[in-house]
Amino acid sequence: MVVVLKNPAHPAEVRSLVSWLEGMGLDIHVTVGRETTILGLVGDTSMVDIDLIQALDIVEEVKRIQEPYKKANRKFHTEDTVVDVSGVPVGGGHFALIAGPCSVESEEQIIRVAQAVKASGANLLRGGAFKPRTSPYAFQGLGAEGLKLLLEAKKATGLPIVSEIMDLTQLPLFEDVDLLQVGARNMQNFDLLRELGRTQKPVLLKRGLSSTLQELLMSAEYIMAGGNENVILCERGIRTFETYTRNTLDLSAIPSLKALTHLPVIVDPSHATGIARMVPPLALAATAAGTDGLIIEVHNDPPHALCDGPQSITPAQFDEVAAGIRQVLPYAYRYGA
Amino acid sequence: MVVVLKNPAHPAEVRSLVSWLEGMGLDIHVTVGRETTILGLVGDTSMVDIDLIQALDIVEEVKRIQEPYKKANRKFHTEDTVVDVSGVPVGGGHFALIAGPCSVESEEQIIRVAQAVKASGANLLRGGAFKPRTSPYAFQGLGAEGLKLLLEAKKATGLPIVSEIMDLTQLPLFEDVDLLQVGARNMQNFDLLRELGRTQKPVLLKRGLSSTLQELLMSAEYIMAGGNENVILCERGIRTFETYTRNTLDLSAIPSLKALTHLPVIVDPSHATGIARMVPPLALAATAAGTDGLIIEVHNDPPHALCDGPQSITPAQFDEVAAGIRQVLPYAYRYGA
Amino acid sequence: MVVVLKNPAHPAEVRSLVSWLEGMGLDIHVTVGRETTILGLVGDTSMVDIDLIQALDIVEEVKRIQEPYKKANRKFHTEDTVVDVSGVPVGGGHFALIAGPCSVESEEQIIRVAQAVKASGANLLRGGAFKPRTSPYAFQGLGAEGLKLLLEAKKATGLPIVSEIMDLTQLPLFEDVDLLQVGARNMQNFDLLRELGRTQKPVLLKRGLSSTLQELLMSAEYIMAGGNENVILCERGIRTFETYTRNTLDLSAIPSLKALTHLPVIVDPSHATGIARMVPPLALAATAAGTDGLIIEVHNDPPHALCDGPQSITPAQFDEVAAGIRQVLPYAYRYGA
Amino acid sequence: MVVVLKNPAHPAEVRSLVSWLEGMGLDIHVTVGRETTILGLVGDTSMVDIDLIQALDIVEEVKRIQEPYKKANRKFHTEDTVVDVSGVPVGGGHFALIAGPCSVESEEQIIRVAQAVKASGANLLRGGAFKPRTSPYAFQGLGAEGLKLLLEAKKATGLPIVSEIMDLTQLPLFEDVDLLQVGARNMQNFDLLRELGRTQKPVLLKRGLSSTLQELLMSAEYIMAGGNENVILCERGIRTFETYTRNTLDLSAIPSLKALTHLPVIVDPSHATGIARMVPPLALAATAAGTDGLIIEVHNDPPHALCDGPQSITPAQFDEVAAGIRQVLPYAYRYGA
Repeated sequence: MVVVLKNPAHPAEVRSLVSWLEGMGLDIHVTVGRETTILGLVGDTSMVDIDLIQALDIVEEVKRIQEPYKKANRKFHTEDTVVDVSGVPVGGGHFALIAGPCSVESEEQIIRVAQAVKASGANLLRGGAFKPRTSPYAFQGLGAEGLKLLLEAKKATGLPIVSEIMDLTQLPLFEDVDLLQVGARNMQNFDLLRELGRTQKPVLLKRGLSSTLQELLMSAEYIMAGGNENVILCERGIRTFETYTRNTLDLSAIPSLKALTHLPVIVDPSHATGIARMVPPLALAATAAGTDGLIIEVHNDPPHALCDGPQSITPAQFDEVAAGIRQVLPYAYRYGA
Repeated sequence: MVVVLKNPAHPAEVRSLVSWLEGMGLDIHVTVGRETTILGLVGDTSMVDIDLIQALDIVEEVKRIQEPYKKANRKFHTEDTVVDVSGVPVGGGHFALIAGPCSVESEEQIIRVAQAVKASGANLLRGGAFKPRTSPYAFQGLGAEGLKLLLEAKKATGLPIVSEIMDLTQLPLFEDVDLLQVGARNMQNFDLLRELGRTQKPVLLKRGLSSTLQELLMSAEYIMAGGNENVILCERGIRTFETYTRNTLDLSAIPSLKALTHLPVIVDPSHATGIARMVPPLALAATAAGTDGLIIEVHNDPPHALCDGPQSITPAQFDEVAAGIRQVLPYAYRYGA
Repeated sequence: MVVVLKNPAHPAEVRSLVSWLEGMGLDIHVTVGRETTILGLVGDTSMVDIDLIQALDIVEEVKRIQEPYKKANRKFHTEDTVVDVSGVPVGGGHFALIAGPCSVESEEQIIRVAQAVKASGANLLRGGAFKPRTSPYAFQGLGAEGLKLLLEAKKATGLPIVSEIMDLTQLPLFEDVDLLQVGARNMQNFDLLRELGRTQKPVLLKRGLSSTLQELLMSAEYIMAGGNENVILCERGIRTFETYTRNTLDLSAIPSLKALTHLPVIVDPSHATGIARMVPPLALAATAAGTDGLIIEVHNDPPHALCDGPQSITPAQFDEVAAGIRQVLPYAYRYGA
Repeated sequence: MVVVLKNPAHPAEVRSLVSWLEGMGLDIHVTVGRETTILGLVGDTSMVDIDLIQALDIVEEVKRIQEPYKKANRKFHTEDTVVDVSGVPVGGGHFALIAGPCSVESEEQIIRVAQAVKASGANLLRGGAFKPRTSPYAFQGLGAEGLKLLLEAKKATGLPIVSEIMDLTQLPLFEDVDLLQVGARNMQNFDLLRELGRTQKPVLLKRGLSSTLQELLMSAEYIMAGGNENVILCERGIRTFETYTRNTLDLSAIPSLKALTHLPVIVDPSHATGIARMVPPLALAATAAGTDGLIIEVHNDPPHALCDGPQSITPAQFDEVAAGIRQVLPYAYRYGA
């Protein structure tokens, strides 16, 4: 951490600041220039509250040199983390192909889709039971009943299941869900993250619509700080000025996150664009860029889906995409250990 | 709502779509051009799922003409809503001056700040008990104890109190809080919004960092759809590419929201910029633009605040700002009834 | 185009508006609902000034149904355009691999890099002579001398050359340049675009940092409206709130543009991220997504490049990337004719 | 400037880097921590190319401490600059009220508007002759003829005139124009900026749609580095995800720029929102925030304006706005000298 002092800085104030910082167990190196005095803080600064220092009268600016997250940081954990989702490994060379409908609608529907995507190569089944909808008048999901139907589909196919948890009060209902998804709108629901940190459940943490990669990693840190290191990160599009697609898929998040963290990184091309015909090319792109997996919305009858129809592809289209992924995968970019 | 069909559209498919839409109680007007066929949907379209129609094979595009919110819509409720916060009216010409520290830290601190801001003209007291912090290692607020201290400050000064609720499980703790704040990160925590809709508590709903005004109004609609119409909207800065300020305060949200809704609109200049010296000019600007109120962070000792020190102003600075607001207020822009 | 009228709309005013619009050669269909009156405009609306209509007192909102560009529009030109760059075809299945240094620095440098990238498979050589730099104190390029050195490199290798034109007064200097690049900051330099439209020179038009895809296509339309249809579009990253990468590469621009236009679409991963180690994975990603080409910065000695060193890769790294591209290319997503 | 080295850094490489930097006339302070080595660069770093250092193999990150602009920097020029526009002072307590139509359309129109706005208190007249339009099919302005008409209006009213220059080849035509506007799309047209730096003409430099404040100041620096210090900055809205207004007016740019630079700062509420009814409240807001002036589009007949009608207000509306501004002005925020 580097602290830039206002000019001129009184030597007595500088000394007092330095000894306060040393009291936090840090080594302080002072650089006095004609126009600025700079303090270099050396040691573990992840616990230092940057706001606190910024508020001091003699401080002009504080710049972090080290990232404010530790457990998610690749610097302190160079090996790729492999998350075990009920027997399906994700990360470290293990590719997760997650598919299924936006919403679970009926037993017949979810089992049919599950069988289809499994046949095409999916190794995890997704399905929404609790749905975050922007309109109070839209279909809100089947709730607990939806989770039961998902478990039926798991029984029928053997595919571990992924579903979104929207509130910490729902946690008991998710006991048999294999991978708990935290949606983009909940990425900074810190109470929920803290609660998930107290479990050992694998968590699929989606990047918020306007969250920086550092904020995504700080949210992962919330879960990990509680003792649960089974976190999979997911890029799903960010909000920009462009309106042609619903959000802008940020595939540079893959190489960025691969450098910053050891956690697995997957991509959701369906929500990023909101347009079914864009899913296949972007799924191939993410694969080539070295993603650890994909999560794709597949619906047996998109025009009659109760939710997110325009971005869902059919099982037949998914079959083609999955074949394409398998072809690209051997030539995908590989990040050094 | 206008539905643009793909070209060419088969007459039979068009007829089938039209009769399906008529089944929803809508009147349909068909416009056939050489290159496009357009359906005009007339009637109450707020319940129509735009995604559902967009997913149909023959549909190229759907454009909303009417806003998807009803209860928050000024078109159906032309008079300004005045929200009563335990005797303090907000909106419709009644100005709310809300002040207090980011976090409640001690009884002495909160009572001292409360007395100071009251003396300067504040009519509501803010103070955080549960704090949403991006780092799991930062101070997380005093919790329930903080709410108790706020109530002490209310007893000492008579000022109704405002505090942020982060999760629906905290609702019982907020029984005596006069105005419940939903923070920017929770603006789309739909479970929380729905629960607040079941109470009659005044709610201060902050705009999310990357939320459009329409999304803000849809979140207000969630609360109002449940029967609670006591909603105050708050602009607090949006996320943009500019990094000099923490967020970008969008003061055009005031005239925009005044046209779209009858709900009171207030502004938070402290969180928008994150820089104390910017609070006074932007508080005056918001006042001139016709805001219904301001929420300002005031701390007795910003450099030692446990949270958000850099953006807090001192009681003495607040006294000056409040005087400035009183001077500008008579000349502020006034929106037609 | 759909024109939504304010409520209530006087029949006489509506009639007068309708006859004015009919005077532009359009057919008008009127839909009268209880709450809104909608006019459907059928015919060639690309010449209609949307602002003009929006300004009318009785108009609430105008929505375009058809895109405001014609010559660049795939609807009126379904076949892929193939641009011939001095014998190298680009688009319609022909892949352009453009490589070279950010700035031409010396004859030896540019010839060396040109020979290296050619050996690795590049079919076009890039090199900056006039450089748009944000600081007046930074190296501004060799100017006309740089163009001469580029031509030497072309003579030595046979590779057609690409260089950026910054102002229309420079046009005579670019007579022998094979592909004229219009940089992101000049994408809306309409005087320059209009002038390029009067030539038959192939133009590489880069998307502006905050330009929508529609604006990019309107800029292409400026060139094409003058009679020059040799336009290649280039995605090079847009400005977002994320600061880890310099810009955010928007690879969804590839499928989006492929649907909207018949012009070739290429990608610049070097400028998008500003980070050399991100170039290889993103080059593979763009390839898989079906780009018509890539433009990559290659420098013999990045740490001593006079410009953009941090994002340049070495000839050896380029050789690896080019090999990777060749492997992915057969499995890249293919857009239907 | 602070240079963070990769870990571990070889002492020999560090020594070599330090002596290279010392060769640029800088003092270097080395801070060696367990995990990072930091170099503090003391001296004039405005000429140091940050990219060059960033590209070095042993460098992890470079952070600027000092701003990269000098002449525009308030640190080296604490007094407010007052720009003299043909007798009308702007800045340092002198308020510029600039008004007029988007486009000059006819002699009668421009003289009529000029007389009206002068009567209401405007002290400068704006009018577009060359218009940057996104569509090649839209009205492009009267060009040189428009400038002549503006000069007629100046003769008739005595108001100095403001008009936009789009290309450096137009410079001779602008000899009698009092204040040359550089539009948002040209803010980084460096050839044009450099050329304007060689004149002594007052320049009105508009912030680009996606330009940071630092980039705006770097563009001012381009003009000032050439010897022309008569630069007025203008905030006119930035591009964000919000689509209700055309752009998002960033009024926090006023206090931000007041701290960073000594140049006058004015605001354009018309282009920022694109909606006439928003101009009055935002003009008052900018005034209260301490702007040095406003530039407002006024048209005698907005529904028939050839350009930007929806955002123009009428002379009668302008008269009311001007009266409002005069009322707020005495209570506007005042920045310390």
